[in-house]
Amino acid sequence: MLRTHNCGILNLTNVSEKVTLSGWVQKTRDLGGMTFVDLRDRYGITQLAFNMDTNAPLCAKARQLSREFVIQVIGKVIERTSKNKNLPTGDIEIEVSELIVLNKSKTPPFTIEDETDGGDELRMKYRYLDIRRKPIKEKLMLRAKVSAETRKYLDSRGFIEVETPYLIKSTPEGARDFVVPSRMNAKQFYALPQSPQTFKQLLMVAGMDKYYQIVKCFRDEDLRADRQPEFTQIDCEMSFVNQEDILQMFEGLIRHLLKQVKGVELKSFPKITYDDAIKLYGTDKPDIRFDMKFVELTDLCKGKKFEVFNSAEIVVGIRARDCANFSRKQLDKLVDFVKTPQVGGNGLIYCKFIENGISKSSIDKFFDNATKNTWAEKAGCAEGDLLLIMAGKEDKTRKALSLLRLHLAEELGLRNPQKFAPLWVVDFPLLEWDDDSKRYHAMHHPFTSPKANDIQHLDNKPDLVRANAYDLVLNGNEIGGGSIRIHDRKLQKLMFKHLGFSEIEAKNQFGFLMDAFEYGAPPHGGIAFGFDRLCALIGGEESIRDFIAFPKNNSGRDIMIDSPSEIDSGQLDDLNIKFS
Amino acid sequence: MLRTHNCGILNLTNVSEKVTLSGWVQKTRDLGGMTFVDLRDRYGITQLAFNMDTNAPLCAKARQLSREFVIQVIGKVIERTSKNKNLPTGDIEIEVSELIVLNKSKTPPFTIEDETDGGDELRMKYRYLDIRRKPIKEKLMLRAKVSAETRKYLDSRGFIEVETPYLIKSTPEGARDFVVPSRMNAKQFYALPQSPQTFKQLLMVAGMDKYYQIVKCFRDEDLRADRQPEFTQIDCEMSFVNQEDILQMFEGLIRHLLKQVKGVELKSFPKITYDDAIKLYGTDKPDIRFDMKFVELTDLCKGKKFEVFNSAEIVVGIRARDCANFSRKQLDKLVDFVKTPQVGGNGLIYCKFIENGISKSSIDKFFDNATKNTWAEKAGCAEGDLLLIMAGKEDKTRKALSLLRLHLAEELGLRNPQKFAPLWVVDFPLLEWDDDSKRYHAMHHPFTSPKANDIQHLDNKPDLVRANAYDLVLNGNEIGGGSIRIHDRKLQKLMFKHLGFSEIEAKNQFGFLMDAFEYGAPPHGGIAFGFDRLCALIGGEESIRDFIAFPKNNSGRDIMIDSPSEIDSGQLDDLNIKFS
Repeated sequence: MLRTHNCGILNLTNVSEKVTLSGWVQKTRDLGGMTFVDLRDRYGITQLAFNMDTNAPLCAKARQLSREFVIQVIGKVIERTSKNKNLPTGDIEIEVSELIVLNKSKTPPFTIEDETDGGDELRMKYRYLDIRRKPIKEKLMLRAKVSAETRKYLDSRGFIEVETPYLIKSTPEGARDFVVPSRMNAKQFYALPQSPQTFKQLLMVAGMDKYYQIVKCFRDEDLRADRQPEFTQIDCEMSFVNQEDILQMFEGLIRHLLKQVKGVELKSFPKITYDDAIKLYGTDKPDIRFDMKFVELTDLCKGKKFEVFNSAEIVVGIRARDCANFSRKQLDKLVDFVKTPQVGGNGLIYCKFIENGISKSSIDKFFDNATKNTWAEKAGCAEGDLLLIMAGKEDKTRKALSLLRLHLAEELGLRNPQKFAPLWVVDFPLLEWDDDSKRYHAMHHPFTSPKANDIQHLDNKPDLVRANAYDLVLNGNEIGGGSIRIHDRKLQKLMFKHLGFSEIEAKNQFGFLMDAFEYGAPPHGGIAFGFDRLCALIGGEESIRDFIAFPKNNSGRDIMIDSPSEIDSGQLDDLNIKFS
Repeated sequence: MLRTHNCGILNLTNVSEKVTLSGWVQKTRDLGGMTFVDLRDRYGITQLAFNMDTNAPLCAKARQLSREFVIQVIGKVIERTSKNKNLPTGDIEIEVSELIVLNKSKTPPFTIEDETDGGDELRMKYRYLDIRRKPIKEKLMLRAKVSAETRKYLDSRGFIEVETPYLIKSTPEGARDFVVPSRMNAKQFYALPQSPQTFKQLLMVAGMDKYYQIVKCFRDEDLRADRQPEFTQIDCEMSFVNQEDILQMFEGLIRHLLKQVKGVELKSFPKITYDDAIKLYGTDKPDIRFDMKFVELTDLCKGKKFEVFNSAEIVVGIRARDCANFSRKQLDKLVDFVKTPQVGGNGLIYCKFIENGISKSSIDKFFDNATKNTWAEKAGCAEGDLLLIMAGKEDKTRKALSLLRLHLAEELGLRNPQKFAPLWVVDFPLLEWDDDSKRYHAMHHPFTSPKANDIQHLDNKPDLVRANAYDLVLNGNEIGGGSIRIHDRKLQKLMFKHLGFSEIEAKNQFGFLMDAFEYGAPPHGGIAFGFDRLCALIGGEESIRDFIAFPKNNSGRDIMIDSPSEIDSGQLDDLNIKFS
């Protein structure tokens, strides 16, 4: 080793020891006769001392060092005269007797500090320098810890990690596949997995009983901010279980992770049905770190002269506690927010409950205090509270109010990233109508089992069919989703039919799975977690970018290595492909 | 859960308990008034008992069960009258009171037994049934255990698992890449990684200090038997180390794995230089579970009238201990073996050392006993030993003799798969000449550092330049290889030059790495293990196939899912490609 110790470990117990350290020059300071160098590695920072009086040539050499030089020093641990209590090594320094420059460095394009002056683009281009920064390094280390603790939990519960293939078969259902031309099988392609879904089900047919894998998945979709073409999943499946067994097992996983990684103890996770989630929060991934449930005021609002309400499918409000003191300007900004294209609201009505049953609203000419007080009563508004009301088409209004709810909570500081509020959302619809293709799509995927009592509605009222499907939501983000699967060939065929697959399409794409169902497929179900997002949330952040060592930008490019890129014509010839 | 216990856990301590079990029907036996069913799951087999006298309808129902039906039973644990000592659950059986068929099964296409009647092709097509067989299931579980123990070892030594990207950049150096057309970046491709080599080096530049990953890699090569287009590596890298540090660390890993997984304690691993390996074993991956080192007899063989020896560059033999009693037929078969195309030898000369200095050889008319005894002396042959000699061109002869050595050891039962003989091979040549392209290639890869003292020879005697490169060989298989890397931009540029890269090519393909070397790259090195092979060897097998859940065949096809396959024209259009 080019060191006897790392830069984070020495303290007063090591005084007088002769040590060798290696690392990067964080900074140098010349103080008259002394030169101090902060030497940094993954483990910490240790101060090096050079004395012009006792060793002028060495001290002169130290003064030549620049930021990010890689050096090795030999020296003696001594107690510092002026200690730094913020540093684990802050009680000591190294009286250096030998200095070797292992590698020089050009001046880095941005500062390697907790707060850097580098913009996103620059940081990504020089990601290897960005990772030297403590916040990024620690995020990657947290990710490794979440991964290790996930395995520890699942291993201890009898799950077997099985690697499923990456070169699989393209299936048009769902998102777009990345495909890989096969050289040995002309005109044919592999696809990269969007998830190991069919393989994990086959592993259940194979009797593996409990499977997991932390695995890369791929989706060739137009990237939105904070979505990556390759992403990591914790992928799990169990046999001989019902839905409640799965919820218990994976609630346990998330609780284990929060405990081990953050020291946070979570209580039992609440459950909500999909319908209630939409009704109470306007979204299937409600953030329940704060309350502000939707209150339906439709019946209490109709029949006055206010046409907005009269013509609305729904009138729905949220109570903003203690916000009756919002200024005109604050309220105007909320109105502006709901009118932005991404929210798409028509407008926003407020009602401030002042005192003694008196309220003040933007529609006072239509509604008297008594009527408004019926709203207050329904919404649980007390004096000092603000009621924000939207009206219109049901779906659109709920969605808009849901975004307002989050926006307001953000403004009110109610979305504390160090608070963790998990929630199971259950009883999802099996199917959802797609206006583009004029047919139903599977809301989760085609292997999700309908609830036994609802199968009868498949033909006539497909909207009513509920699935044995569940999502785990954390702080308003879907971090996992799964279902009890179909394990019966006939039911699977029926599902494919309802999803618009011809018999031939179903056979070509999923024949192997339906064949497998004929040889003793056990009842089974599972779940998959978005690992990047999970790590980010545990790390107290919304953005996944810095929890990925080498992320791609929004055009799917890795700007550090400049990929994707052209390949040479010989490679194209080998693959028998050309550009159209 | 559809069970209270699994099928491997119940014993006499559970007698009288009411239990629910679920699993597969392994077999049914009708014995007069009783019907017995062996119920199987991942954990074991439990016997179910049905009694025609006490519950005729239930017993009749049990008699309808066929192999591989999935059933659930409720019943009472009772002590067996005739116990099965070979089964952990062999002391008990279940007196069944309720039987539910969870899923039926067609008759499987091969028997689900330790020894099956299914051929390779059939087993692969129905891999989900093959995995139900205990030997395959156990291999996959062993793999999971090797993986878990690898992580445990590396985690405890401060390695951080970092996921590197799968969609990277194609580089023509080395094997052929699998490429992935980019839809969002027309005419451009990602490549799937052959290894995370450059990324792990960037992580060292990033200060991660110790990195590992158990990761899929991809190579689009013409497949030889037992080679897969996608394979798994244990990929590791360390900073501030020299070669010996790496050997110690990863010798420790292999020792840990053998200890934890097999209960085998290994001593310190021997080391051999590449030159000595070639000289003594004719290969850079010698199997040292047995001796039979090469003995060079060239000087002792020249100058007689035997032209085969006189014209040979080298005459070299191996001693087959106690094999002087080999029959004419046995010897002829060895001759046949060396003449097969894959060995490529011209012939084989034998010399049996009988007794009292008398020997009998296939070339007795050219050599007297005294000469032959000089051979015996050099080869350490005693009475009863057989000396097998080959002669010819140096490289070819060594290679052929190396194959004979393995063949003979196999025949003599010296290749015991439960014996583990690891060996470090060090001091590899940096470059090897490629006759096709008429230039030198990197023997490991272009990032391997030459030995400092040898750099001077790069221009004039490139053959002489040795690398800081090492392989770990286990039982004649290379299971790992690595090197100390170049961390200096100038030296890396020099290497690219010697490998025939133009400056522009080097910049286009590896510019990001050379740029990184300008910002304080630390000295670093690493190793990668072929995980599939490692698991197979630890499992006492030579073939990797059954240590992979869903392997591909020798044409790179997954015959279970029928992949690769055609994709629809819309996908091709999206990617702007067509077939040439």
